[in-house]
Amino acid sequence: MSDKPYFEKHVFFCVNQRDDGRSSCGERGALAAQKHAKGRIKQLGLNGHEKIRINQAGCLDRCEEGPVLVVYPEGVWYTYVDHSDIDEIVDSHLVGGKVVDRLKI
Amino acid sequence: MSDKPYFEKHVFFCVNQRDDGRSSCGERGALAAQKHAKGRIKQLGLNGHEKIRINQAGCLDRCEEGPVLVVYPEGVWYTYVDHSDIDEIVDSHLVGGKVVDRLKI
Repeated sequence: MSDKPYFEKHVFFCVNQRDDGRSSCGERGALAAQKHAKGRIKQLGLNGHEKIRINQAGCLDRCEEGPVLVVYPEGVWYTYVDHSDIDEIVDSHLVGGKVVDRLKI
Repeated sequence: MSDKPYFEKHVFFCVNQRDDGRSSCGERGALAAQKHAKGRIKQLGLNGHEKIRINQAGCLDRCEEGPVLVVYPEGVWYTYVDHSDIDEIVDSHLVGGKVVDRLKI
């Protein structure tokens, strides 16, 4: 068995949608952002085993700071506003290994 | 800001349910297993910031080995059959820090 992690970078987007009037990642474009990131990684040929996986997740319990995502195994958390923020996280962090300080939470 | 990870252990259960006839974690009790683990962690008072978070996730792309979960930041993957397997993962790994080799994938 390989000693490498199953995914080199495993990214989880909170896509939780609240129905109780409280703010949630889901109503701030999280699902579209996740699909955008997933598509971009696929386009770059970086998806799959020992590479990068872009996942949806339930509530990550940082609602007030949202929309949020987390990159494992390093455990770096980000917020984002639009797809250009997502592109920066993909290009700088996921592909280049350099954390995007301005979006880090 | 604390240097500690936001969650000491962040657990993701694949709860994906396929509609195309292919086998999926969701149809093998994943949601009930996730709720069981989450309840147990809460009962132990171990849920929350700098402690343990039990999340639902979309397809983790290891369908054939499912149902699966992954524990970060260590990136240890498990399969399970029933709630006693979940209890063993909670007690041994999440609480005690000892990987459950027999369930590891």
